[in-house]
Amino acid sequence: MSESDLDDFDDCVLCGAPGGEVVWESALCRVVMVDDADYPGYCRIILHRHLREMTDLPEKERTQLMNVVFAVERAVRCLYQPDKINLASLGNMTPHVHWHLIPRWRDDRHFPFPVWAAPQRANSPGRRLVDGRQLGDGIIAALRST
Amino acid sequence: MSESDLDDFDDCVLCGAPGGEVVWESALCRVVMVDDADYPGYCRIILHRHLREMTDLPEKERTQLMNVVFAVERAVRCLYQPDKINLASLGNMTPHVHWHLIPRWRDDRHFPFPVWAAPQRANSPGRRLVDGRQLGDGIIAALRST
Repeated sequence: MSESDLDDFDDCVLCGAPGGEVVWESALCRVVMVDDADYPGYCRIILHRHLREMTDLPEKERTQLMNVVFAVERAVRCLYQPDKINLASLGNMTPHVHWHLIPRWRDDRHFPFPVWAAPQRANSPGRRLVDGRQLGDGIIAALRST
Repeated sequence: MSESDLDDFDDCVLCGAPGGEVVWESALCRVVMVDDADYPGYCRIILHRHLREMTDLPEKERTQLMNVVFAVERAVRCLYQPDKINLASLGNMTPHVHWHLIPRWRDDRHFPFPVWAAPQRANSPGRRLVDGRQLGDGIIAALRST
């Protein structure tokens, strides 16, 4: 992988497409639902601009972005009642700031390991499904009550 | 795993021990260096109190904690010059708020996958080593310039 691969926003999948169903957005970032049958409620919070690291953002926008991440966390906890929330900003393959927010259950496919580790069991059916509008409304409510 | 396992701070490894070499701490949290030969510069930022999720913290302390996470990110970027920073708050096994901050290199053991995925290659030797005092000083400098 060359330096240009890591910094070339012309080829960035998050610059070229929303990256999922957009359920909420602001001038700074968008929240998308990730279509993953194992993890209903899996969201990504994606910075609109192409920056590599959180510390490439000015402090004010960094705090604004984290406030959105935590509003999504509150909405997902309320709507899905997971056993745990996992948050991660990795970006090794797509070095464009984005947060993974993954609700976890004790009987989910990888618990207690991260979702990137080897699966531990088959998927457990019957998780609550929430549509994009409900999630968007939940995020708006969480942001208002911050 | 029972409910009590997830919430019992009597058995919490992060309540019972520092969790690594403490290089900086405040009334709210501590920063420890993780002893991982594959990932020099791997730090954890650990809340002192036993809370499960970031959104269990009041907003002010949540912002303070994230400001420490980002100060460590700035210090680690400056001292280790990694290709990428990975941030994660998981807590499936230890549901006590803590952040993993992992400097990544293109030729490291798991790149471009998360460090929890299957290894891709043997460890690459010769990463720069930084001692705890240098890292602590870097964090102090980053916090001062915020």
